[in-house]
Amino acid sequence: MYMYSNMKKVFVTGAAGFIGSNLVERLLFHGLDVVGFDNLSTGQERFLDASEKSPKFVFIEGDVLNKDALISAMMGCDAVFHLAANADVRFGLNNTSRDLEQNTIATHNVLEAMNANNIKLLVFSSTGSVYGESTIIPTPENAPFPIQTSLYAASKLACEGLIQAYCEGFGIEGYIFRFVSIVGERYTHGHIFDFYKQLINNPSKLTVLGDGTQQKSYLYVGDCINAIDHVLSMRTARSSKHNVAIYNLGADTYIRVNDSIKTICNTLGVNPIITYTGGSKGWIGDNPFIFLDTTKIKNIGWKCEHTIEQGIVKTLNWLQNNLWIYDKRT
Amino acid sequence: MYMYSNMKKVFVTGAAGFIGSNLVERLLFHGLDVVGFDNLSTGQERFLDASEKSPKFVFIEGDVLNKDALISAMMGCDAVFHLAANADVRFGLNNTSRDLEQNTIATHNVLEAMNANNIKLLVFSSTGSVYGESTIIPTPENAPFPIQTSLYAASKLACEGLIQAYCEGFGIEGYIFRFVSIVGERYTHGHIFDFYKQLINNPSKLTVLGDGTQQKSYLYVGDCINAIDHVLSMRTARSSKHNVAIYNLGADTYIRVNDSIKTICNTLGVNPIITYTGGSKGWIGDNPFIFLDTTKIKNIGWKCEHTIEQGIVKTLNWLQNNLWIYDKRT
Repeated sequence: MYMYSNMKKVFVTGAAGFIGSNLVERLLFHGLDVVGFDNLSTGQERFLDASEKSPKFVFIEGDVLNKDALISAMMGCDAVFHLAANADVRFGLNNTSRDLEQNTIATHNVLEAMNANNIKLLVFSSTGSVYGESTIIPTPENAPFPIQTSLYAASKLACEGLIQAYCEGFGIEGYIFRFVSIVGERYTHGHIFDFYKQLINNPSKLTVLGDGTQQKSYLYVGDCINAIDHVLSMRTARSSKHNVAIYNLGADTYIRVNDSIKTICNTLGVNPIITYTGGSKGWIGDNPFIFLDTTKIKNIGWKCEHTIEQGIVKTLNWLQNNLWIYDKRT
Repeated sequence: MYMYSNMKKVFVTGAAGFIGSNLVERLLFHGLDVVGFDNLSTGQERFLDASEKSPKFVFIEGDVLNKDALISAMMGCDAVFHLAANADVRFGLNNTSRDLEQNTIATHNVLEAMNANNIKLLVFSSTGSVYGESTIIPTPENAPFPIQTSLYAASKLACEGLIQAYCEGFGIEGYIFRFVSIVGERYTHGHIFDFYKQLINNPSKLTVLGDGTQQKSYLYVGDCINAIDHVLSMRTARSSKHNVAIYNLGADTYIRVNDSIKTICNTLGVNPIITYTGGSKGWIGDNPFIFLDTTKIKNIGWKCEHTIEQGIVKTLNWLQNNLWIYDKRT
């Protein structure tokens, strides 16, 4: 486990979430002690069933908005993986404080708790949405300074800025990953989740937000965890000017929502009549074309091993075997 | 007053501050009703002496961290000029919550109060510091996506993102100005302020942070207010894709700190022995070279009318006639 050779114990916020719970399993696989932290607002205890069997795993139910709880929970850890977040892009305008609190202020709390515990390594899950409606596609990490179009992306950008300033000021080694939408086992929100839910209720009808021409890229969660692992094995931030390394994470291609629907319908063996709500965007702040340039991480040896279609099929298979999630996440 | 033809009453946060109080006078000159809002933590009541004589000016002492106070103070206004901020870049690492609170959360409060009052025009004072250590100099508005190096700049970037997302989501017309350091009458912090203070105490000695080779650009406050006026006369954001227009504001040139010191010493008629603290930066997060590309605003007709040297001399003349400010701002 060369990449974690200096580490014994790591801290994961959002540990019971989709990506967090997959990451926890990988970290345990590497032989690390893992402290998982989650308020179980969207995270699921069942996602930690496998990890709970390990004597090296401790779960702490707590909220990242509680700085004191974070400070004491982090004690003795060598690194922090900060994945806890509000991840719902769509409803920011309905609750205009949520992204500020759960993303920006929460990340500030995590950084303060790291300082209080003298922890010097942070991995953060950001989003390709920070590029707004980029004029350059595929979009590289050094794309032109963007305009934010959603409160979600604005809050993630604010988190990135905070992390960068703490890295500069306090010598924290920071890794920021800008994800496209992640799919796969334990996927609990997004268009596949919504479409499958509609098709369970009525396999002959499907309502699609926008006009179906939005183009997006999706990354399989296994490829996402591999990427984080791979970057940490290189520890590239240590040699960068500002102590922080930023990587796009995404698949090598993109698909239209309509093509994604075809894959979903083929996998499920249904043939619904599709109604479009219309407009080129699914909602205000929706980005009609997200496709990230991943040359930077590919140049240090990461490879995306699953196609978007494989990711969608794996997601559907998991949802089919875990219908209970629809009772938990309405 | 063509530019304000649709407006009757405007709201200015930070109205008792350096730039804010100069702006208030201009807005009153245009015949507008002006509500000035300031908590007087760094703002000075004396800066409003002239404005207080106008029947069209109302001052409300209040804090931008108090959302309810903002909501009621803004009632009946047509536009908001949000200038209240923590403007001290240097000491962010000593108080790591201040920029988050006084800049990011305060700006969120201002946006919420605008929504509560259905106000659809916002002017915001951002900073050229958001470009971090740009690889492109002079730096244009669409420079490569930067890395933040100070908590101050990170918080201003967070404000910009919030404003952009509110403009997109709620149809607010937004104007973001990225300032270089502003100098001139009522200047209350920065290197001229600090150097003059040292030279009052002892005209034969001057201590300089860094090595004196840092290159910066300074804009005279009158040119700054002219620029805001000019951009509002064009209302360019109304026709832009995202309802928001961003402009760099700076002088046409830059100078080394050492050259700035020469101008200061010549103006004061002193010849101190200079000691450098060393290093290419004045402090962690200091940007050793700030020079903004102002082609965008010049292309719509704004012109910088004062040289950096003229700005420095005007600043010193004002400080010489207003030594009381050194008792207020220690």
